[in-house]
Amino acid sequence: MDYLHLPESIIEHAKPGGQVLAESKQHRSSSDINPPQTAIDNTCSITKDFSCIYSKDLLPALSGEDTTKSFFQELVNILLSYVCKSFRRSSKVLDFHHPHQLREGLEGFSLELPDQPENLEQLLVDCRDTLKYGVKTGHPRFFNQLSSGLDVIGLAGEWLTSTANTNMFTYEVSPVFILMEEILLKKMQEIVGWSEEEGDGVFCPGGTMSNLYSVLLARYHFFPEVKTKGMTALPRLILFTSAHVRITSIHVRSCLFILSINMGKMIPAELESSIITAKDQGCVPFYVNATAGTTVYGAFDPLNAIADICESHGLWLHVDAAWGGGLLMSNLHRVKLQGIERAWSVTWNPHKMMGAPLQCSAILVKKRGLLKDCNQMCAEYLFQTDKHYDTSYDTGDKTIQCGRHVDVFKLWLMWKAKGSEGFESQVNKCLENAEHLFDKLKQRPDFELVFKSKPEHSNVCFWYIPPGLRNMSPGPERNRRLHEVAPKIKAKMMEQGMAMIGYQPLGDKVNFFRCVFSNPATQTEDVDYLLEEIASLGHDICIRD
Amino acid sequence: MDYLHLPESIIEHAKPGGQVLAESKQHRSSSDINPPQTAIDNTCSITKDFSCIYSKDLLPALSGEDTTKSFFQELVNILLSYVCKSFRRSSKVLDFHHPHQLREGLEGFSLELPDQPENLEQLLVDCRDTLKYGVKTGHPRFFNQLSSGLDVIGLAGEWLTSTANTNMFTYEVSPVFILMEEILLKKMQEIVGWSEEEGDGVFCPGGTMSNLYSVLLARYHFFPEVKTKGMTALPRLILFTSAHVRITSIHVRSCLFILSINMGKMIPAELESSIITAKDQGCVPFYVNATAGTTVYGAFDPLNAIADICESHGLWLHVDAAWGGGLLMSNLHRVKLQGIERAWSVTWNPHKMMGAPLQCSAILVKKRGLLKDCNQMCAEYLFQTDKHYDTSYDTGDKTIQCGRHVDVFKLWLMWKAKGSEGFESQVNKCLENAEHLFDKLKQRPDFELVFKSKPEHSNVCFWYIPPGLRNMSPGPERNRRLHEVAPKIKAKMMEQGMAMIGYQPLGDKVNFFRCVFSNPATQTEDVDYLLEEIASLGHDICIRD
Repeated sequence: MDYLHLPESIIEHAKPGGQVLAESKQHRSSSDINPPQTAIDNTCSITKDFSCIYSKDLLPALSGEDTTKSFFQELVNILLSYVCKSFRRSSKVLDFHHPHQLREGLEGFSLELPDQPENLEQLLVDCRDTLKYGVKTGHPRFFNQLSSGLDVIGLAGEWLTSTANTNMFTYEVSPVFILMEEILLKKMQEIVGWSEEEGDGVFCPGGTMSNLYSVLLARYHFFPEVKTKGMTALPRLILFTSAHVRITSIHVRSCLFILSINMGKMIPAELESSIITAKDQGCVPFYVNATAGTTVYGAFDPLNAIADICESHGLWLHVDAAWGGGLLMSNLHRVKLQGIERAWSVTWNPHKMMGAPLQCSAILVKKRGLLKDCNQMCAEYLFQTDKHYDTSYDTGDKTIQCGRHVDVFKLWLMWKAKGSEGFESQVNKCLENAEHLFDKLKQRPDFELVFKSKPEHSNVCFWYIPPGLRNMSPGPERNRRLHEVAPKIKAKMMEQGMAMIGYQPLGDKVNFFRCVFSNPATQTEDVDYLLEEIASLGHDICIRD
Repeated sequence: MDYLHLPESIIEHAKPGGQVLAESKQHRSSSDINPPQTAIDNTCSITKDFSCIYSKDLLPALSGEDTTKSFFQELVNILLSYVCKSFRRSSKVLDFHHPHQLREGLEGFSLELPDQPENLEQLLVDCRDTLKYGVKTGHPRFFNQLSSGLDVIGLAGEWLTSTANTNMFTYEVSPVFILMEEILLKKMQEIVGWSEEEGDGVFCPGGTMSNLYSVLLARYHFFPEVKTKGMTALPRLILFTSAHVRITSIHVRSCLFILSINMGKMIPAELESSIITAKDQGCVPFYVNATAGTTVYGAFDPLNAIADICESHGLWLHVDAAWGGGLLMSNLHRVKLQGIERAWSVTWNPHKMMGAPLQCSAILVKKRGLLKDCNQMCAEYLFQTDKHYDTSYDTGDKTIQCGRHVDVFKLWLMWKAKGSEGFESQVNKCLENAEHLFDKLKQRPDFELVFKSKPEHSNVCFWYIPPGLRNMSPGPERNRRLHEVAPKIKAKMMEQGMAMIGYQPLGDKVNFFRCVFSNPATQTEDVDYLLEEIASLGHDICIRD
């Protein structure tokens, strides 16, 4: 019979190896505390004793096929049990332990690395413990990060990707994935609004890297001599960005001009005057980073106004749409990125708003060929041009990396599974959740919104006001106390483990909660639950006078 | 009954959805050409019709658990069938098609992205086709890349990692993985030979990034003002490296002094004189990259001699042991890296010689705290310090990235499964294979070694000499012809698909084959097979006069 079809409640308590484990004295694990239900041994013949089996017995060992399959079957049971649990509201989001507790080998879960091999049973127990003490980022009540959710098709894509275990280095070793990357990039460029003749790009390990590419490209575009003569040959270059951006690279930090903001947005007039001031000081402005969806507020810079300024001064316009890019999939919301088609480069992370598993980030570049010109090192020992296929498909020379992880397949498979339409309704739903939260917050006297206006993205920022602070007049004393509220609530929330939300101070604003929605599993009932949870945890917290 | 225990030969030809697919006219796939064996429908009840099921029917859909499990069961069958096939010598390493052939939708395998969702049956077929037209990098006769092999425990680790789908940003969202990273880094530092008080590090997306970290760290160490005042505040800095290194970052390329080599190795006397020359010219040498295991020759720079020079001139010594680091696991071979303990930073990629799935690369830094000092941006909105746990475990401020993929779990699980001993015997075996190939090549008149001395690493470089060239005297004419041999053989080899090996020219040497061993599945019989294959493909090739 099929183990996978057993009731979930049985599977998640069953140990690999069933009863055998209980007799094996040297093993300890979390489950020893709660003895495994043994029903499974009577109903399922697949359970196998792995306590005398080691990795050397698996493939490529001769006749290792059956053992390998049985091992993976047990593993898959553990993983799918976790997946199912992740979506259940009755299960905890996390089971928090402090670092020293985990380091001490909680309930026999030893993290130390041995000299001698351990058996496969112990490994399976370790796998389950690893998941047990982790955080269910796919849980409908995990609101902590821009990347959340567990897209099961994306997950299937990741399993296949790791099974293929290849690299985006050349067409030779990744023919299918290289073509999928090309097709995905083309589609994303089309959605950004570039013409057929425009557009190039590459997937790279995260938004910071994508932004780094954009700076390198801009610099090379205006000053190709940087490649041969180096930085010292260049004038003092200046980049402009708004405050709430982690633009990578300490290489450039010092030439970064950080503009002030209004409700999280860049102020075009200030950009223009700063450009003029920089020129007057003998510096050379060359690059503007506009943000489409800031991390905390989810704000969108006014792209058309910024593009006008960039055009008139001849500057490279980069749009960091790592977080906001997903809204391009929605006919209802893409208006917020109006003007993005005028960008010279765009960062867009499908691992954020589109729900692809981490990591999945693209840098899109309008000018074709620039990526290769900028980054290629003509290392013939890596990229031979006398091969028998069209070596323009070898992407290694477009990147600053050598080996490159395959990040495209999961996104490709998700696109097949949902269609562009599926992404659209997913995005719309997340923004509906944000609006629902915003509406609720407006109505409640125990909460206060950071901004009174409707959120543009799925970020909603707010304070919980405990009873003792509700009648205090605004001022430093109230701020000092309010600053302590969110951390205290968060601490209690993590100990209880039923939801998770982030907080931070920003500018002149003391610690406030930021709720973000990118998980399609989240329903309005989860939003309501979150507010009740915060209110109930916060009602009795103690704030120092 | 358990589908996974069916004979492999049946599984790999069975279609998901069984006979149903044959009736579904809109689907086409590679398997339509070879009709599926239907035996499976009589013997296995698990096979399910997915042609009317869509991703919206999977979790988080209400009552989506069973469907999700069945879908993954089918997927796992496809993946495990591929895994088993990867290790079989009778199966092809690759089934080569040109880009235009794949783009045209080979046998119904369409890569285009739809607006409307496709059904799960089509997705499963697409998954199988993706694997079918890819390259089996785990095949015992895949010798093409430094990263090869399919470690099944590493694979299990990857499946779990993607199921957990979290990020190395903070302890808060990755408690277990953060601790595993700390323990792995500590172990690796101990193996490098640093004391208990020394050592820091981080896993990052590949060796190029790790090397980039080392340059940033060295610069910050000597010139901390770079962080506040920028590059222009610095003198003209010079980095030294030997020729065959792809040291990343076009930021630094222009200040790179490339030393000549002898049999792939840096010449210490030349390093010293170059440092002196640079100083004489008013430049400031600050960083030397020594390589432990070059990409093509597998050469090891003389680390102790280089460390002496770095010490006497006060330079940062970085050792790029991306490829050679694995030899530290072997008591027999670690002598080749003698002196590595004197490095200030080390790049070590377990995804190369240790067989971990891609990506798995570490930058190790001797001076504790430097990584954080160099890279932190004190972005309180990302990393709050008033959280209720020890926030020194939040690694986000040590990195130049924000989100960071979990690359540690697979390595941790492999270490548990093999023990340090297991890695040692794996490494030793790869070097035995290299020695076997070297011995064979010495004996054969139809091959010529690039170097007469025994390989230090598992790289073996050689030419095949076709009959027409064997009696030609050395010179430009023979070289011109010899240069064409390897590409022609490689092209035929890829078309046939039974093995895969890389070639390249280097310096004054015309195209030669480079065989590398990092796949524990490879046996001496595979080495012998490779030589016979090259000789048989090369015997009759046509070289232009």
